[in-house]
Amino acid sequence: MNETTIPKLLKDLEALPFDMREKDFLLTWELSKENLLAILKTGLLLKELHRTGRSMRVFDTGLAVSIFRDNSTRTRFSFASAVNALGLTLQELDERTSQIAHGETERETAVMISFLTQAVGIRDDIFLGEGDRYQRNFIQAIKEAYQEGILHQRPVLVNLQSDIDHPTQSMSDLAKLIDYFGGIENLKGKKIAVTWAYSPSYGKPLSVPQGVIGLVTRFGMEVTLAHPQGYELLPDVANLAKKQAEASGGSFSVTENMEEAFKNADAVYPKSWAPYQVMVRRTELLKSGNTASLKDLEKECLANNAKYKNWECTEEMMKLTRAGKGLYMHCLPADISGVSCKEGEVSASVFDAYRKDLYHQASYKPFLIAAIILLSRMKDPLSTLKKLSQHEKSLIL
Amino acid sequence: MNETTIPKLLKDLEALPFDMREKDFLLTWELSKENLLAILKTGLLLKELHRTGRSMRVFDTGLAVSIFRDNSTRTRFSFASAVNALGLTLQELDERTSQIAHGETERETAVMISFLTQAVGIRDDIFLGEGDRYQRNFIQAIKEAYQEGILHQRPVLVNLQSDIDHPTQSMSDLAKLIDYFGGIENLKGKKIAVTWAYSPSYGKPLSVPQGVIGLVTRFGMEVTLAHPQGYELLPDVANLAKKQAEASGGSFSVTENMEEAFKNADAVYPKSWAPYQVMVRRTELLKSGNTASLKDLEKECLANNAKYKNWECTEEMMKLTRAGKGLYMHCLPADISGVSCKEGEVSASVFDAYRKDLYHQASYKPFLIAAIILLSRMKDPLSTLKKLSQHEKSLIL
Amino acid sequence: MNETTIPKLLKDLEALPFDMREKDFLLTWELSKENLLAILKTGLLLKELHRTGRSMRVFDTGLAVSIFRDNSTRTRFSFASAVNALGLTLQELDERTSQIAHGETERETAVMISFLTQAVGIRDDIFLGEGDRYQRNFIQAIKEAYQEGILHQRPVLVNLQSDIDHPTQSMSDLAKLIDYFGGIENLKGKKIAVTWAYSPSYGKPLSVPQGVIGLVTRFGMEVTLAHPQGYELLPDVANLAKKQAEASGGSFSVTENMEEAFKNADAVYPKSWAPYQVMVRRTELLKSGNTASLKDLEKECLANNAKYKNWECTEEMMKLTRAGKGLYMHCLPADISGVSCKEGEVSASVFDAYRKDLYHQASYKPFLIAAIILLSRMKDPLSTLKKLSQHEKSLIL
Repeated sequence: MNETTIPKLLKDLEALPFDMREKDFLLTWELSKENLLAILKTGLLLKELHRTGRSMRVFDTGLAVSIFRDNSTRTRFSFASAVNALGLTLQELDERTSQIAHGETERETAVMISFLTQAVGIRDDIFLGEGDRYQRNFIQAIKEAYQEGILHQRPVLVNLQSDIDHPTQSMSDLAKLIDYFGGIENLKGKKIAVTWAYSPSYGKPLSVPQGVIGLVTRFGMEVTLAHPQGYELLPDVANLAKKQAEASGGSFSVTENMEEAFKNADAVYPKSWAPYQVMVRRTELLKSGNTASLKDLEKECLANNAKYKNWECTEEMMKLTRAGKGLYMHCLPADISGVSCKEGEVSASVFDAYRKDLYHQASYKPFLIAAIILLSRMKDPLSTLKKLSQHEKSLIL
Repeated sequence: MNETTIPKLLKDLEALPFDMREKDFLLTWELSKENLLAILKTGLLLKELHRTGRSMRVFDTGLAVSIFRDNSTRTRFSFASAVNALGLTLQELDERTSQIAHGETERETAVMISFLTQAVGIRDDIFLGEGDRYQRNFIQAIKEAYQEGILHQRPVLVNLQSDIDHPTQSMSDLAKLIDYFGGIENLKGKKIAVTWAYSPSYGKPLSVPQGVIGLVTRFGMEVTLAHPQGYELLPDVANLAKKQAEASGGSFSVTENMEEAFKNADAVYPKSWAPYQVMVRRTELLKSGNTASLKDLEKECLANNAKYKNWECTEEMMKLTRAGKGLYMHCLPADISGVSCKEGEVSASVFDAYRKDLYHQASYKPFLIAAIILLSRMKDPLSTLKKLSQHEKSLIL
Repeated sequence: MNETTIPKLLKDLEALPFDMREKDFLLTWELSKENLLAILKTGLLLKELHRTGRSMRVFDTGLAVSIFRDNSTRTRFSFASAVNALGLTLQELDERTSQIAHGETERETAVMISFLTQAVGIRDDIFLGEGDRYQRNFIQAIKEAYQEGILHQRPVLVNLQSDIDHPTQSMSDLAKLIDYFGGIENLKGKKIAVTWAYSPSYGKPLSVPQGVIGLVTRFGMEVTLAHPQGYELLPDVANLAKKQAEASGGSFSVTENMEEAFKNADAVYPKSWAPYQVMVRRTELLKSGNTASLKDLEKECLANNAKYKNWECTEEMMKLTRAGKGLYMHCLPADISGVSCKEGEVSASVFDAYRKDLYHQASYKPFLIAAIILLSRMKDPLSTLKKLSQHEKSLIL
């Protein structure tokens, strides 16, 4: 591993012209590279504090609110862990036991749950064109109420997965890549294959692959996106990845051949997702409540998926990677053939060989979320981090 | 705004012969005026501490338990925020995942969840004759267990809405009125219209209007209750309002004419509720599990409501208020015509014009709940408040 | 009562060669007598700290995770209270809103929720052969991840009821017995009747009676297990109880006669459970999703139960106990005849006569859970307990 020491991280942060104060965390590509680096380095620092049994508490009291419009284990517990470690208490907004309506009321709810709230995390990834919109609407409402003096403080919003991006995931992925390749400068020229993979389930969001290509293309990586015909991602994000790759001295290409993507890859990220066009149709049917057509769509979609069962990350496939030793990545949980499903994204032997790396990849998320909240809410985050590093308050009193 | 300073509030509290120690908060009219004023002033003080970034934590650890037998967003988050700010951790009792029976077992549950609990909040507003009874039963059980030494401490019970009163709401309403009119003495002679309003939904509890007329009549206001024939409130509460108004030098009258109530009103509170007699029948049907008759009742009730669609708070109606500038109030969420429903309690333009006031009205609730718990649980609340005001412990460490 | 003082408890603990460091709490019979005594004495000490308004907080921040695969009120709130008192924040893993699969993924979930977690509580008591297995699998996964450096710390697992044991319950029962009879040495030779009792419900777990006979037989008690033919417990546990009784100088016998068990009993613990063989068949049917046969089994089982309605703990039965004054025990909630059901485990008059004792019995659980976590997670628990006892930090700041 390449986890740098706390003094080194503090020094790096001091040299970095970042400014996350009162900023939200929606799409990584809306944030400057300096801010992303500040989040990464702060996350590493907090992880190191925790590893050595020290407290990162910065709040005396205060709420953090999470809104999960889709199931979640990993991200839910990452957010819960992060806010707890900072001294906040999680209160989930369960829309089943509240009466959440549309239009103005959506904005009203945003204010009503924010009177003593320092951070809000939202997962809303099911409807294309919905999750990101909802989050921006939420931010606008609390900003306005803060400016009007209705709110005493203005919570930071953390996107815990929208229809467009899954930025706490892609930042964890980036942290893993940096650690694995021994430094951010070493990402330049490294080849990563972000590929579709077969899954017996349907309707998986596009935000994970979009998040990855939207982030790593900024750091000079050679990115190959591979998927069967018809499994395109949001065109805007693919275009953005292209532009970013050019600007960073890397590259971005798309292929319909999984083997081609894997060839000489330093890292591979094979994961299932639903085709963009299917998600568009699904969103329309869900909105109109057309249950019969939804079932037809699911059937059609699963049948279509089944044509590509060979898009599996097997030992054979891994042999194509650089010296047969490319890093296998996944956001988890993976559809493991013979374990969690009959035929899936990855063979059990590949998954097992990289299990430790996969868990390590996941281990960054709580600390990166904590970093985002800290950097957005603290007036002088650098001096806060120095204080935390110096007082050495133990987690166990 | 008229939010007085912390030194002034402390001075006022010092002069006030209040005693909320180990008292519960069920119906405002069971508490002395001094206790209500102490809650208001303590709430303002805690709000000011929070506004200036200071901690109001008074507990090291401890649970607060909430029991919501009906949906809630605002009150749920107000309670969650309040107990968190005081240093307690919220644990909701979800009756779906517990096995809560009737009779003795109801009292048993009360004790079983209270071993390390400092505050309990209960919303139980669906059945007439049930919510208040349940809360009193709960209190009796924990009092007894405390006296027997089974419980080491005795949690305070906060009524988060019963069939009779919604006292944390009415206290927020009162706080807003005091602030709006520049002091509690200025409420004398001010006219408030508490009126029914049309809603496309059915079965809304009576406790909000009952709570308002049961509270503001104690402060010399001229209260007009308006509703269509058949939409009476609980007779006991209406009678109480009448008596209290007489004692305080105000007035209380009932009319079936919304315009009459609005005429020259300094404040209006138009809100839908189900008729008392309908709630009685509904309670009987719910208890006997008579689903078919329940549907008939709903149909009949909605049809009846629909006769009074003109009971809407429009711009025209607002022009009737004092100089056309009366304050529009609501406990939220409102049924806004054209926004959250086709035709509802209030027009979008009226709601928008008063949105900031409405959110400000809602902003008192967390601090008033915190005030109730603090006053009931602290041995010497005045010295606690002084300590909080002096040590200036920051919310952000 | 016989609650010894804090200095005495500290002295006792000092003399006790216990070692619970990084140990889990699955089955009492896997732990040494010294460790059980250390848990009991630490629990009493924490209870006394709480009674006198002092804090037992040992964690600055940190999560505790609970997984309830069956309904719970008492144990849920005991766990919530315990972890809160220690300074941890409870985060429930709700499997309905997560995507929990089988096989490897079960172990993955264990790691994913443990990155910043200090304690995990699991109730999984529905399937025979499942709950204990799941807990051991969970432990193995987090141990491995801790050794690999993926986890910075390794949470302690607390069994909150499995198919085999309900150890936080049986330890509370033991604490009550010790208190009631004035010391652990006084348990020697005392007769306890652990008996089946009639209930109109079906499928109650076997873990409570198993937990009791698996624990009290280690302390020299004369244990009689009584149940109708066909209501056997797990043979392994019954055999274990027999062996332990012999080793401790007590006795263990089984009878099909409730009166015989009650005769001269110093304490009785009448409680319903499903026959072992029924649970085996039920587990198979549940696994195969055979709904029709499940209904038949329930019918058959309830009909069988109904043959033994006379297995009720009545005043008549209590007269059989030693001098008619035996202690009536129950884990609660009890099926009280005429209160929570028509005919049940215990008559209302017996229950009422022992209500205070029953609540007292329940009151130990939060403190014993806190003791387990503290002893497992603190490096030097004795010095932690001394510090807590000396600094006298108040619960109310």
